[in-house]
Order: sequence, then C-alpha cells, then structure tokens
Amino acid sequence: MSDDTDMMEPAAEDKGEDKGYVLESKDVAAILYAVEIDDREQLVALMEPLHAADIADLLEQISAFERARLIRLYDREFDGEILSELDESIREEVIAVLKPAVLADAVRELDSDDVVDLIEDLDDAQQETILGALEESDRALVEQSLAFPEYSAGRLMQREVVMAPEHWTVGEAIDHLRGADERELPDQFYHLVLVDPRLHPIGNVTLGKLMRSRREVHLKDLVEETFRLIPATQAESEVAYAFNQYHLISAPVVDDEGRLIGQITIDDAMAVLDEEHEEDILRLAGVGDESALSDNVAETTRQRLPWLAVNLVTSILASLVIAQFEMAIAQIVALAVLMPIVASMGGNAGTQSLTVAVRALATKDLTGANVWRVIRREVLVGLINGLVFAVVMGIVGIIWFGSPALGYVIAAAMVVNMVVAGFAGTVIPVVLDRLGVDPALASGAFVTTVTDVVGFFAFLGLAALVLL
Amino acid sequence: MSDDTDMMEPAAEDKGEDKGYVLESKDVAAILYAVEIDDREQLVALMEPLHAADIADLLEQISAFERARLIRLYDREFDGEILSELDESIREEVIAVLKPAVLADAVRELDSDDVVDLIEDLDDAQQETILGALEESDRALVEQSLAFPEYSAGRLMQREVVMAPEHWTVGEAIDHLRGADERELPDQFYHLVLVDPRLHPIGNVTLGKLMRSRREVHLKDLVEETFRLIPATQAESEVAYAFNQYHLISAPVVDDEGRLIGQITIDDAMAVLDEEHEEDILRLAGVGDESALSDNVAETTRQRLPWLAVNLVTSILASLVIAQFEMAIAQIVALAVLMPIVASMGGNAGTQSLTVAVRALATKDLTGANVWRVIRREVLVGLINGLVFAVVMGIVGIIWFGSPALGYVIAAAMVVNMVVAGFAGTVIPVVLDRLGVDPALASGAFVTTVTDVVGFFAFLGLAALVLL
Repeated sequence: MSDDTDMMEPAAEDKGEDKGYVLESKDVAAILYAVEIDDREQLVALMEPLHAADIADLLEQISAFERARLIRLYDREFDGEILSELDESIREEVIAVLKPAVLADAVRELDSDDVVDLIEDLDDAQQETILGALEESDRALVEQSLAFPEYSAGRLMQREVVMAPEHWTVGEAIDHLRGADERELPDQFYHLVLVDPRLHPIGNVTLGKLMRSRREVHLKDLVEETFRLIPATQAESEVAYAFNQYHLISAPVVDDEGRLIGQITIDDAMAVLDEEHEEDILRLAGVGDESALSDNVAETTRQRLPWLAVNLVTSILASLVIAQFEMAIAQIVALAVLMPIVASMGGNAGTQSLTVAVRALATKDLTGANVWRVIRREVLVGLINGLVFAVVMGIVGIIWFGSPALGYVIAAAMVVNMVVAGFAGTVIPVVLDRLGVDPALASGAFVTTVTDVVGFFAFLGLAALVLL
Repeated sequence: MSDDTDMMEPAAEDKGEDKGYVLESKDVAAILYAVEIDDREQLVALMEPLHAADIADLLEQISAFERARLIRLYDREFDGEILSELDESIREEVIAVLKPAVLADAVRELDSDDVVDLIEDLDDAQQETILGALEESDRALVEQSLAFPEYSAGRLMQREVVMAPEHWTVGEAIDHLRGADERELPDQFYHLVLVDPRLHPIGNVTLGKLMRSRREVHLKDLVEETFRLIPATQAESEVAYAFNQYHLISAPVVDDEGRLIGQITIDDAMAVLDEEHEEDILRLAGVGDESALSDNVAETTRQRLPWLAVNLVTSILASLVIAQFEMAIAQIVALAVLMPIVASMGGNAGTQSLTVAVRALATKDLTGANVWRVIRREVLVGLINGLVFAVVMGIVGIIWFGSPALGYVIAAAMVVNMVVAGFAGTVIPVVLDRLGVDPALASGAFVTTVTDVVGFFAFLGLAALVLL
C-alpha cells in the first residue's frame, strides 16, 4: 500500500474538487511556462497542490525535452512517489535525468513493494544505483522479492505484516501494537493476521473489531469469515481475480511451506486488475501490450508492425481465394463490388463473438460447464442475424444489379459466413486458452482469416456455380 | 463494503486453495446431479464450501431450467449475498423463482448499498416486493439512495460512516467506539471521518494510527495526507478513477452543501472499475455493453444486430466506391484480387490507433496538452509502417502479377491508407469525446468506414489513372 507524501492544502483540495480529476491544459501551460523562464519558485508553487500521480501524468503528457528541463529545475523536490506512479515507458529516461543524490532520497522514501515495482523493469546499471541507495535491511527485502518470478504475488506483496499469535487476547494485541516501534509497523494496516506457532496464517482480525471488543476476548473468536491465502508464486492476475471475486481487503501471502511472508492489499490488486484490462484491450486490437502514450514514433512503429505483418499474411491468404475466381469476376464485375460486404459482415460478427469469449475466459465465466451452450448460442445468433441480413442484402442485390440470382447468392453466402463467424469466434479463443496461449493475443488474426476466406469462398464459389 | 455471510470451513478453504479459484466442471456436475435426483441434503453439503460469488457464477453457467430447479431445491439456504453477486441479466429470473419468505430473509441480510445495487435494475413489481421486505429504517435509506441519479456516487455509497467531531482526542474516539451499539457501526470500517460542526468532513484517521496513539493526542494531528471528497452526484466512473489514481481506501461522500452523507470503499470502486473496462471492451467490439454470457439467443441477437446493421451500411458505402471503378476491374481483374488487402491493412492500422486513443481518453492520459503530439506520432507511425508494407506489397504485386506498375499502385495506396488510418484513428475518438459521445461506442464504425473508402478509392483510383 503506498502512502502519499505530499500534503494537500485544503484550499487546493477544494479547487481540485471543482475541477474534477483532470489536469487542466492551462495548469500544464502555466507549469511549462515556469520551466521555460527557469522560474524555480513558481514551478514549485504550481506543482505543490498536485498529487504525485498527477505529476506523473503531467510528465507523461509533455515532450521528452520539456520533461528533462522540468525535472532539472524541480530538482530536490522530486519525490519517490512520482517515480512509482510513472509509466514504465519513461521511467528509465526520468531516472537518467535525476541527480544521483535526488534519486537516492526519492527511493529511500518508498516502501519495499514500491521499490520492487520500480526497479524490476530497469536496466542493470539503474537497478544497481537504486539498490545502492537503499539501507542494508531494505535492500535485502527488495532483493528477496525480486527472487520471485515476474508478475507473481511474491513481487506484488509488501513484506510488512502485523501478525499476532493465535492464542492472544484483544488486550495483548492492543498492548503489543501500542508498544511497537513506529518503524516496525506498516504505514497503513487494516487487519491483524493470526498465526500458529509455525507461522501459518489462520485468520484475519479487522482493527474495527479489535477496537470494539473487550480486552479479555480471544482474537480467535473475532476472525473474519472470508479468508484466503495467496501462494507467493501465484500469478498476479489470479491475485487480482481473487480480490475482485471475494471482496478481499488484504490477504496474507505464504511461501511453499504455508508460512506467512507478506501481504497484498486491495489497492495493489486494483492496480493489477487495471493493467490486465489494459493489456486485454490492447492485445485484442493488435497493439503491443507494453504500448504507452508517451512512446516515441520508433517504439510505436516497432510495436505495431508485427501485428500488421500478421494481418498482411492473412489478407494475402484471402486474396489467394479471390484469385481462384478471377474468371467469374471478369464476367460479372458486380461480384467484386459486393464481395467485401460478405467478408466485412462475417469479420464483424466474428469479432463480436470472439470478444465475448475472450472476456468470459478472462473472468472465468466461460468454463467446461457451459462452453457447448455458448457455442450453440453463438452459432444460432449467427444464423438468425445472417438470415436477417441475407434478406436485406438479397433485396439490395436485386435492386442494385437487377439480378435475383445475384441476390440469392449473396444472401446464402452471408448466412454461411455469419454462422461460421459465430462458431470460429467462440471455438478459436477457447482452444487457444486450452493450449495455454493468451486468447486476447492471437484470436483476432485467426478469426478474421476464417471469416475472410469463408466469406470470399462462399460468395464467389456460389456465384460461379449458380451464375455462370 | 459487503460482508461475507457464509462461514468457510478451514478444510474447504484449503481445498479451495489447491484448486485455484475456478469452479471445477466436476463440482458443477456433482451439484447438477444432486439437483437431478432431488437430493437436498447432498446439494446443501456440496454448496456449503462455496463462496456466494462462486455460487452466483455457478448459477450463471447452468441453463435456465437447471437454475430454477436448483434454487427451488436449495430453498431457504439461499442467501442475499448470492443475489448481490449475480449478473444483472439473470437477477429478475432468479428473484421470480425464489419463495417470498426466502427472498425477504435474503434481502434483510444485505447492507443498504447492496440492496440499492440489487434493485435498481429490477422491474417495479420486484422492487416493491424487496422494499416491502425491508425494515422501515433500512427501506428509508435505500429509497434515499435511489433518489440519486443512476451510476452516481450517491447510488454507490454506503450510508453507514464512523464519524468523530474534529476536536476529539484519541481517548474520546476509542471510548465512543467501544460504547457504540454494534448495530450502529458498519460491519467493516477502516477510517474515522473527522467532521466540523456543520458536518463537513475535514480528514480521515486510520484505525491503525488511532490504536497506536496516546489517549490525549488530538485526532486532528493524525489525519491522513491524502483526502478527497466525493460529491454524491459524481459519476461512478469518476469515483473509480479517483480511487485508482490516488490509492484511496475509503472516501467520504458529501451532498450539495458539502455535508457528510456516506462513504465509498475501495472494493466497490474496484467493482466499478471492472465494469467500466468490461463496457469499453464490449463497446469497442460492437457488442451491447449489457451483454452477458447467460443471455439467451433472442437477447444476444437483439444486442448484436444494431452494430451489424451499422457495419452493413458502412460496407455498402465502401462497395459504392468500388462500383465507380467497375470498368477498371473488368479490364484488370487483379485489382479485385488485391483491393481487400489495402482496405484490410488500413482497417487494422486504424483499429490500433483508435484503441490506443480510446483507452488514453478513458484514463485521462490523452488531453489538450498532448493531443497534437499524439496525432503527429500516429500519422508518422502510419507513414513508416505504410512504407514498409508498400515495399512488401509492391514486390508481391510484381512477382504475383508480373506488373511493376500494379506493384507501385498498391504500394502508393497502402501508404496513403495507413497515414489516413493513423490520423482518423486518433482524431475521430477525440472529436467524439469532445462532443460528449462515448468514443468506445462509435469510433470503430467511423474509422473503418474511412479506411475502407479511402483504401478502395486510393487503390482503384490510382490504378485507373496509371494502368488504363
């Protein structure tokens, strides 16, 4: 759980409320002007009411040149929280601009989990600089967390947990908390974790219950009903799922032997959920999931090119199908005019089905128990929508080209392609998921290949049979 | 904040850990078998270890027929939490199956915010039944919340807040909490909200700090640094944004005059964030954002048809462009073979740009401060990728059709369409957003229309100029 290090003035806060949460263009302009004229005092005054997360957003929105000047002028006011909030894509750049002493101070303010999150994607030299700035004990904690696999609960957890032996009473727990050194306790905590003598967690007690109970009550009698252990090696996406599904506020993290080694709090789980969604959306659109708005032209081109290359191959495949019917097209040019409609409708229907399937797989709603019913539904929906649009296109074909036969052909091809779209749009993501491939990543290319190929083949093939 | 009403057996919990979080097919099968043979005891035993959220998932995954039988057999074991967790799409159906007495008991277990969430989408008769089952005081709270607009903070908040006058000391606060009737306090709470005499919130004090401080310390000296007020009329998507951006755990909700009337906790904000993402993904794919996996064929067909109709219109537009070049196609059939490639590459590049823009608008990362830089970047990326694929397709055109001129034409059309795709893919969502239209909802149709029309026009037009 991160704490906020910048004190908000009530006046600034009220102003913030009126403005809503967006950094306004005129504030950005005022800040950039202060940077332009090298007015440090003015810059600090303008930045003071901003939350670290807003300062990070500001840095992401301006150009690399403005960023470097701003950071140099802001100098020692730069705090660690801003680094934590920065998008990964510009962290290295910002760290490279910071003076070593400012960087060291900034990093020492952070909790161990935030340092882990900060450095895991940096290059080795920057990692060393930051680890070197930490105190010995913090450095050890960070290095232990880094030993867990990337995107695991072990990386996400904070090491500071407030625990109590299972046999304690409320009085003993309160005395212990009051006697504890400030520095031993996390900055914010909401639960005590009860542990047995082998350090296995056996339940959570909320501070609210602790506070309201008589001193002689046993902690064991106060444990929460919902309690879930998180194995340190569990994927962070599973952690986010569990928090969302079971409304957890914090959950203890355990090692291979079930011993308590840390905890994860809901705000970190919420951040993971947000990232997972972002990845899914970007993957579905064939945009590299590391993509950020602050990426430059070269990075963005590099991320998008592979997906376009895949699309080129699939559309060449579709063109090969068309090429088989050059004779038919030469005789009836209307086929060339109408064929993209069949492919496009199939592609859209397929994307609808596949998006629903990909989402349902991610939320664990699509399982062995209902997969056949969902496939059946998608095929039937494809059939009904196909019939509706077949009628429409049949009429369009007849009116536009005066050929009932052409109308029937496009209508039949539409039905075929939309049924196939419903089937492929569901089966392809399910199969990819079973094979351990992220369905958000690869389904799109497969499904549109199928709907393009089937669309062109069904329409041109039927036309060749019926019309020639 | 919802509390969990089903007690977990440690053994079941351990088993749950080993299995991961998914309801396994064999468990579902065992439960359905118990329903099949009308074995109530067995059903209750099998359901007992399941969390209400998992039971809701189970109900969503089985057929409507199985659902009704299961609920009737499960009877009075059915608790309110399950209703809360159920997808809206089947709530009415499930409520209609429950016996009135079971429904009344289930509803009375819930917190006021959960009741609000439960009934806001029900039909009037069901709303009346549920309101009628509540005690007078709870009913009044629910009705007050329902007076706030849909999707507002007022609907999302819980009314129970623990507040303390700003002049109190730690000792006074603790004595008050210990003296309070259990029923006056929320089931779970993490902060005290300090208020001035006019009930204006002035700061949060965490229970952890309260507990560790000496009795004579003033609460005012313990307030958290980050503190944000949520106006009751604020949109829930803005609330979710604020929690995620500022790492809030709970935030006080105030009325028009700034008086404290409730609070929102992070778990509810996380649920909203999850729903917003779901909506964005579904809207981007042209699937009704109310769509659920448990919807039947008729509902699903109805949701998807309008988007397919829009797509039909846009693809007919594209066909009208092609029709202008019938002569050219009749002379060089290769044009018909290659033209879908140009359109498809532009469509994909446009979708990439638009997805990035829609996401960045949703996360408030794309603002007046950087919109021109982003447009410039997207256009340049389109230009570079366009040039790369122009070379590839130029070579393909020459090899495949033995015509250098055809190669140049497709190469040039590719560059044009991908530059246009980058431009339209960014500008269209930005303009829609400024006009107050959800860019996730409408951008796709516009962008693909542009890339189809421009793709076909550029390719066939250039071909007509150069090759004929």
